[in-house]
Amino acid sequence: MIPGPVSVEDEILEALARPVQAHYGDRWTALYKRAAAGMRDVFKTAGEVHLVFGSGMAGVEMCIASVLSPGDEVLIPTNGLFGDRMAEVATANRLQVHSFSAGRGAITAAQVRDELAAHPGVRAVCVVHHETSIGVLNEVEGICRAAREHGALAIVDGISAIGGVPFDMDAWGADLCVTVANKCIGGPIGVAPVAAGPRALAALDDGRPKAAGWYLNLATWRRYSELWSGWHPHPTTMPTSVIEAFELALTRLLEEGVEARCRRLAAARDRVREGLQEIGFEMLSPLATASPVTTAAYGLEGMDVADYLGWLLSEHRIRIGGGLGELRGRIFRVGHMGRAAEPEAIDRFLRATAAYVERMPPKTR
Amino acid sequence: MIPGPVSVEDEILEALARPVQAHYGDRWTALYKRAAAGMRDVFKTAGEVHLVFGSGMAGVEMCIASVLSPGDEVLIPTNGLFGDRMAEVATANRLQVHSFSAGRGAITAAQVRDELAAHPGVRAVCVVHHETSIGVLNEVEGICRAAREHGALAIVDGISAIGGVPFDMDAWGADLCVTVANKCIGGPIGVAPVAAGPRALAALDDGRPKAAGWYLNLATWRRYSELWSGWHPHPTTMPTSVIEAFELALTRLLEEGVEARCRRLAAARDRVREGLQEIGFEMLSPLATASPVTTAAYGLEGMDVADYLGWLLSEHRIRIGGGLGELRGRIFRVGHMGRAAEPEAIDRFLRATAAYVERMPPKTR
Repeated sequence: MIPGPVSVEDEILEALARPVQAHYGDRWTALYKRAAAGMRDVFKTAGEVHLVFGSGMAGVEMCIASVLSPGDEVLIPTNGLFGDRMAEVATANRLQVHSFSAGRGAITAAQVRDELAAHPGVRAVCVVHHETSIGVLNEVEGICRAAREHGALAIVDGISAIGGVPFDMDAWGADLCVTVANKCIGGPIGVAPVAAGPRALAALDDGRPKAAGWYLNLATWRRYSELWSGWHPHPTTMPTSVIEAFELALTRLLEEGVEARCRRLAAARDRVREGLQEIGFEMLSPLATASPVTTAAYGLEGMDVADYLGWLLSEHRIRIGGGLGELRGRIFRVGHMGRAAEPEAIDRFLRATAAYVERMPPKTR
Repeated sequence: MIPGPVSVEDEILEALARPVQAHYGDRWTALYKRAAAGMRDVFKTAGEVHLVFGSGMAGVEMCIASVLSPGDEVLIPTNGLFGDRMAEVATANRLQVHSFSAGRGAITAAQVRDELAAHPGVRAVCVVHHETSIGVLNEVEGICRAAREHGALAIVDGISAIGGVPFDMDAWGADLCVTVANKCIGGPIGVAPVAAGPRALAALDDGRPKAAGWYLNLATWRRYSELWSGWHPHPTTMPTSVIEAFELALTRLLEEGVEARCRRLAAARDRVREGLQEIGFEMLSPLATASPVTTAAYGLEGMDVADYLGWLLSEHRIRIGGGLGELRGRIFRVGHMGRAAEPEAIDRFLRATAAYVERMPPKTR
């Protein structure tokens, strides 16, 4: 029950174990294009999608570096590890990063508007939708709108959100967005779908030299998707087994419906929160900004959070996440995506947690 | 029987289908470090190895872009698609590329020496060990020596060679080398092990701004391997299922012994060549420079190579590779790595090919 990679269904593990197929030819190309088209429905975009072979951060870097030039100003608000990581990536690509911290609250559109007013030269706003390190949802719809009003691109890290949290790329005006197979979609680790809308493609082709090199350059992926369209619509070997399993997970998501999946995960969140609150835990975020896919809670007074995590793993084979950075040892994080969203899994976790608290020495309670 | 991705053994497919594990923690870190250490034995290096999450070309780009600065001169000899690809990657990273074509012969150390004499400013020589597009082995040992005498770095694309072709990174003086799990190692698609020796690390840390951004920057991977060493020794989520299966494939390779594997694949090559020659085919390369893992042969006069490839696939479920670029329709390529190196698999392929030739109209023979 960590905030990803998620435990996947048996049928998806079985798909992963089919004999390895080639990354070219009719059958493969049809599969790749079907998966990319399915992801357009999940992102809700009429733009294009490429299934980038790499981690989510590889996809984030592709989004940022493909449309911006060294020296360009970008605004990257942050409220945790993954916002900071986006700023690190932008800096490594020689962009001029304006950042601000929203603490442990949600990043709001109003904050972004103020910062854009202070930095008129900003060409792109980069924002994490779900800040996994604290389980908080940022105001991405309003932030995209603010970016667009400013004439800046909106780049969204939707890694642990897309497919499990309401998101509407075209209606919200997001220009580039990335996610991964192994969070809300419930697939294996191996690809990072990247979506690009018309303003992103215009920026890609505006003739300015971009920060990106070859592999993590959207222009490379577009060129090969045209050049080798009917046979090998990507520049590189692809992890065919992973994409076969991912396509099955995606099919299951579309059968369930993205809205229904979002509701189901939100119900899982409510079950986790209510259960933990009953035991006496305090949540890190109010319900209004709490992620539907990861719940962060403070340890009880006197509780050794590391011991609790180790005990859950050794006694119950339940792995949950700890706090990151300055929250290490102070909070724990429960992911409720994939199989971890099943009510029985949540109840088993809550019973184990109640038992742990029960056996804590009274003085520490 | 394509030149990769290879068909993998059932036990490796089964490892791929185990429940997804987290990409951090003691058990995971031990597995990751064991796999990286095993790869040091395969590369034959005392240097360091990182298991890069991406395709082989992602690893090639990491090698090139991490140690060179925009504007640096590099020498990239080429005799096929993958040499050209290396030049494309270097150009996209704003390096000044000197290239020459060795036609369909092996690239020799003498040719590289001459070019280095003509271009004294070259800081790195980038070379493909096994040019998969024509099944030719280049003189990498001598080329590495020539680079070193010149004071340049030697960067080797060992994607379809390492583990199946004799290679000795430290003895030969290669500074950076990349391979993939899914060629001679016989693992699944998903990671590109990158090895770096002391001269590469010195170049990485020489204070000059490098072409690389964040993800495909060896400096990033080194920093996180130190920062999060005992828990998460890499900067990003890793494809844990793939690495679990890869580690098993690597164990099997080390049990067999790299030298024994090389001999076994060379014997497979001899079986393929002799069998094809008996049917009447002409080989693209003389034995002295022919790859031990992929054999390229010209189609017979009047033979429709595309029809032959399609017939093999539809009638016998045997997939082999076609020619690339100007060799499309003129040659075919048979990979004999992984399960395709089994004598029974080779004999089945040869029998099918003989049957195809038998049924060709006499006038075309």
